[in-house]
Amino acid sequence: MVNGKPNFVTVAHVGIMEMTSISLGMNKSHYTNQGIKENKTFSVNLPSVSMVRETDYCGLVSGKNEDKSVLFTTFYGVLKTAPMIEQCCVNMECELVKVVDFPSHDVFVGRIVEAYCDEQVLSGGAVDVGKVQPLLFVMNDRSYWRVGARVAGAWDVGRELMQ
Amino acid sequence: MVNGKPNFVTVAHVGIMEMTSISLGMNKSHYTNQGIKENKTFSVNLPSVSMVRETDYCGLVSGKNEDKSVLFTTFYGVLKTAPMIEQCCVNMECELVKVVDFPSHDVFVGRIVEAYCDEQVLSGGAVDVGKVQPLLFVMNDRSYWRVGARVAGAWDVGRELMQ
Repeated sequence: MVNGKPNFVTVAHVGIMEMTSISLGMNKSHYTNQGIKENKTFSVNLPSVSMVRETDYCGLVSGKNEDKSVLFTTFYGVLKTAPMIEQCCVNMECELVKVVDFPSHDVFVGRIVEAYCDEQVLSGGAVDVGKVQPLLFVMNDRSYWRVGARVAGAWDVGRELMQ
Repeated sequence: MVNGKPNFVTVAHVGIMEMTSISLGMNKSHYTNQGIKENKTFSVNLPSVSMVRETDYCGLVSGKNEDKSVLFTTFYGVLKTAPMIEQCCVNMECELVKVVDFPSHDVFVGRIVEAYCDEQVLSGGAVDVGKVQPLLFVMNDRSYWRVGARVAGAWDVGRELMQ
């Protein structure tokens, strides 16, 4: 939320700090940064492969010049100041807990307060990455990629080497 | 490098801070943490799908009890105290720049000092994610997944919406 309007930006530099905290590394020139600093909240919305055009567009134009609030249907959760995107099948609302300063980037660390998803992407009560079809971003070839097949179970397939 | 020996751990909670800095979120109970704090260096080695057993094994057993230095052929770069894995086709050696403290986790932020790769994973001089075949880790279903097909070009496919 920036200057009273929802704004959306495509973020390449993301991270998981621990189970409930995530990070967004955002160049200090971005319009969205001031909104996060003012509200001390932000949302993270996972775009599926079908949303590749809208996702890329949000990274091509700035909220300084274009009203990106008209692109999506928004909804709000418990934090009230973190608009989320109904068209994204996984949404998280976050409370800002820390800003780690880098020369050209603000790294915003947020605690996930609540998460939302479409029922269609659930399998046995958990979000199924195969159904979400999230976009992966690769900087090297400046491209979006999709997630492929499941390979093996974690904390499991390596047991063979335990003898 | 812990207590004079290379040690390797599987890290799920990773992040990109900005172009040259990455993060590792590691539970404070891990054996590797003390080595990173002592040496102020670490390496990041990307395992391919073909290394799923070894990768999972490194997350199942601790360097406190098992000597994991015997699993791989190691090599060293400019930092001298960050052993890297020859069997991984992409390696980065990092200088510790910051430890962000969380209740149960140390988040180690490192600046990438040098990166190495196998020539076979290059396309036009850049690392090709399709050739690397990196393992993706999904916590929800406790599984490893592979990267699928390329979807579209970034800073490009969204131009259609710029009219």
